[in-house]
Amino acid sequence: MKLKSFQDMDCSLAQALEIVGERWTLLILRDAFFGIHRFDDFQGRLGIARNILSMRLARLVEQGILERRPLSTGGRRAEYHLTAKGKALHPVLVALTQWGDRWYPGVCGSRIEFVERDSGEPVLPVQVRAGDGRALAPREIGVRTPGDGTDPRPGGESTSGTA
Amino acid sequence: MKLKSFQDMDCSLAQALEIVGERWTLLILRDAFFGIHRFDDFQGRLGIARNILSMRLARLVEQGILERRPLSTGGRRAEYHLTAKGKALHPVLVALTQWGDRWYPGVCGSRIEFVERDSGEPVLPVQVRAGDGRALAPREIGVRTPGDGTDPRPGGESTSGTA
Repeated sequence: MKLKSFQDMDCSLAQALEIVGERWTLLILRDAFFGIHRFDDFQGRLGIARNILSMRLARLVEQGILERRPLSTGGRRAEYHLTAKGKALHPVLVALTQWGDRWYPGVCGSRIEFVERDSGEPVLPVQVRAGDGRALAPREIGVRTPGDGTDPRPGGESTSGTA
Repeated sequence: MKLKSFQDMDCSLAQALEIVGERWTLLILRDAFFGIHRFDDFQGRLGIARNILSMRLARLVEQGILERRPLSTGGRRAEYHLTAKGKALHPVLVALTQWGDRWYPGVCGSRIEFVERDSGEPVLPVQVRAGDGRALAPREIGVRTPGDGTDPRPGGESTSGTA
């Protein structure tokens, strides 16, 4: 099945989905955040077909989200490490995981809790916050499009609220 | 192409991706946050095939992310509105959009800026924060799995850091 490309869609969300909007990709990145670096370890944990994993890793390297580091032991083996661009996806993964945990809990309740490593204290739920740190509800947040001063809603104005 | 289901994977991220890890779904939700409620408006903005849109909307309603409200004018027409569960995805969309805007800017730079509606001031970049509001880097964040006290890393401990 050929998927329609979002690349021509002039929307930053569509651009992001073009790269990471694929079912396996965020799970591969999740494992990279958990310290997985080698092909066989990704493959064993995810149970993903080797050719699919190979394609997904190549794409993530090509996009500068993972860096491929050949092993000093030589041969064709390599490790995959998150770049700054890859690490910048961490809030997305945490937010999506918190949402999944809240609305699709396991049979025994919450599956996972993110904590500050040093203190062991839970982190805050990921929320959109004003400059002074107040959490904002969707209806309190508007968008501005610096490019042309219009917003993407039909009939939208320069600064407009969302639902 | 039959996609492997993530539903059996006991991971909150996988559960979330099972529901919203589809290329169109987050764009439909984006438009819902922009105040789009009707089938024809979603269809016109997204350029998505009607049968695909129809399936995606039905799934979002079935999962309680959108609520279908028949129009008082009667007939088969309806509006789709975000539920609390749907609105809880807003931080995910904002975080992913900010990432796309940062790493895949348009030809004229940033495409979109989220602002506090009342003040017009930009919101903060979505980040994972400690209880006192400090932004935390991925390496400062660990996970705890309340269910069984273990972590999903091979050889991982009860509280462990991420990359």
